[in-house]
Amino acid sequence: MNTSPIRWEDGIVRLIDQRKLPAEEVWVTIRDAETMAEAIRSMQIRGAPAIGVATAMGVALAFVRAESELPRHRDRMDLFQRVSRLLLQTRPTAVNLRWALKRMEQVLNRTAEASPRVCVEALVNEALDVQREDIELNRRIGAAGADLFPHPVRILTICNTGSLATAGFGTALGVIRTLWQRGRLVQVYACETRPFLQGARLTMWEIMQDGLPGCLIGDAMAGYLMQLKKVDAVITGADRIAANGDTANKIGTYALAVLAHHHGIPFYVAAPYSTIDLSLSTGEAIPVEERSPDELRRILDVPIAPPDCPVWNPAFDITPGRLIRALITDRGVITPPYSETLRATFQTEHSNPPGNSL
Amino acid sequence: MNTSPIRWEDGIVRLIDQRKLPAEEVWVTIRDAETMAEAIRSMQIRGAPAIGVATAMGVALAFVRAESELPRHRDRMDLFQRVSRLLLQTRPTAVNLRWALKRMEQVLNRTAEASPRVCVEALVNEALDVQREDIELNRRIGAAGADLFPHPVRILTICNTGSLATAGFGTALGVIRTLWQRGRLVQVYACETRPFLQGARLTMWEIMQDGLPGCLIGDAMAGYLMQLKKVDAVITGADRIAANGDTANKIGTYALAVLAHHHGIPFYVAAPYSTIDLSLSTGEAIPVEERSPDELRRILDVPIAPPDCPVWNPAFDITPGRLIRALITDRGVITPPYSETLRATFQTEHSNPPGNSL
Repeated sequence: MNTSPIRWEDGIVRLIDQRKLPAEEVWVTIRDAETMAEAIRSMQIRGAPAIGVATAMGVALAFVRAESELPRHRDRMDLFQRVSRLLLQTRPTAVNLRWALKRMEQVLNRTAEASPRVCVEALVNEALDVQREDIELNRRIGAAGADLFPHPVRILTICNTGSLATAGFGTALGVIRTLWQRGRLVQVYACETRPFLQGARLTMWEIMQDGLPGCLIGDAMAGYLMQLKKVDAVITGADRIAANGDTANKIGTYALAVLAHHHGIPFYVAAPYSTIDLSLSTGEAIPVEERSPDELRRILDVPIAPPDCPVWNPAFDITPGRLIRALITDRGVITPPYSETLRATFQTEHSNPPGNSL
Repeated sequence: MNTSPIRWEDGIVRLIDQRKLPAEEVWVTIRDAETMAEAIRSMQIRGAPAIGVATAMGVALAFVRAESELPRHRDRMDLFQRVSRLLLQTRPTAVNLRWALKRMEQVLNRTAEASPRVCVEALVNEALDVQREDIELNRRIGAAGADLFPHPVRILTICNTGSLATAGFGTALGVIRTLWQRGRLVQVYACETRPFLQGARLTMWEIMQDGLPGCLIGDAMAGYLMQLKKVDAVITGADRIAANGDTANKIGTYALAVLAHHHGIPFYVAAPYSTIDLSLSTGEAIPVEERSPDELRRILDVPIAPPDCPVWNPAFDITPGRLIRALITDRGVITPPYSETLRATFQTEHSNPPGNSL
């Protein structure tokens, strides 16, 4: 089953409304750039790589709709500027949004002398390329990670690192998918991932869609699961990785790393190489966002705690590189000592990473 | 503020409906044994010691209502048998329920020759004694635990071990309350305690009622909290303790013990001495109840995961005695090696523990 969160279908886009998962699987039809901008703003689609795809497809939609009104390059650039402004206002910090716009602009310049039909076709193809390339990057991560496990394994993960967070396939969940394809996935345990419940709502939904041997657990159950020897490896995603391997990821990742260490279970991080930020020497330099207390006081608008009670709600935590057995990236598996290996990997690669942001 | 979950008020009983906390603080008025039985059955009141108090007060209510119709001991025993049957049907496994009925029966026998008024007064006083004694037991636990911390401390706890789970004051939360009374509680962090959210719903409610310096965290945040050096000690309750100190308690307790161990933070268990079960040599003999998958698939009736997804939902976990710095009981603080100290404590005490069950 295709669990890509966004699809180009003959001049329209269909995307799954992630706010409603898993209670309802609602596919929304997007016909123009305005509706796409609203879908990004309202988080019907989320996750930086997925937003990049949505942006490119939003531009393509605008040109498909207006093809007959775009005889000259100047007309096309006017439309592009208008659509760009609209999309840039939705999630101003999403790096992939800017990067996707840049790619579409390059196509417009390349087809400046071409007919409207050729130009529009090129834009649609570019949007599909953005999607395809991100999926391919995730598949490289998946293959590199799966190579680490020659035998059947039971994996524990946290948050959503799957198709819904990317253009498709996923990072940590991409490794897990690849293991399944290779007949080596015995079980995948998904932590529910309070407060936003991405594990329960989104990862378990993907697992059920794909028919993986999945199992939902509460975040507080991971330790006991390991004590009972039901986990062979932990694989998580990453939001940012410092030069020494210290990794910022969804809150709860650090506890999983400590618990894995205590039980002698290997702990891996799977992420695009672009997640590595060599400008930060250690994880202490990574700012950790603290989010609204109401995320813990309520669950999906249902109050579960005193309405005014004090809350500590960090969105991420920092896992020291020394607790991470290896980083699984689209440039292969990187092992400690990270202070040496990460810089070495960077120096041997001169091209920019292929379109994935933090 | 009095946060005892149940109060005798001049011939009636008022108890807080724990099913509605913290969204609504509803005090229910109970005027007869029938309504009390329904309150226990429907879990408006819960927790073994609290059920013991409710049972004794239920018997007292029946006698207050029928005082004029009870001239002879035989009439009183007929009423007592009727009320006992009613109460015993509510929660058949609640040990404190049987124990409370036995105490009330002893009062009836002691006052067989007395006037109805004297008999009824004695029954009311006995019910109040049941409540008072459990609170006193908890206060002894509180004092013994607080003695461990001569300096200001920040405590992390899990689940609800407070007034609502007992006749009042609480076990682990009783230690925390005592520290507050002694001016030594800087902060108490409460894990929300999925799946039933006793930490968010009940413990945070008690903390807010008493004005303690409390803070709610997600279960997955405890590790990061310790990494940031914001916790000086962890104190939890216990459901059963084996002869070697292995402790069954709310799921997530074991992970807290491992995380505390990793960070060099002392981990304590506070519980009535009666929680210790010397017939079990290790925690492996303690059966761990696995509860309904829907507890994780839903939160307070709101679906948060695919409705049919596989779930692992153990209600408890087992923390090895070697990770527990000390057991804080109503017979004082017991330290390792538990295989020796627990049996020694038992041999020097010959009276039955005062009315607290597992």
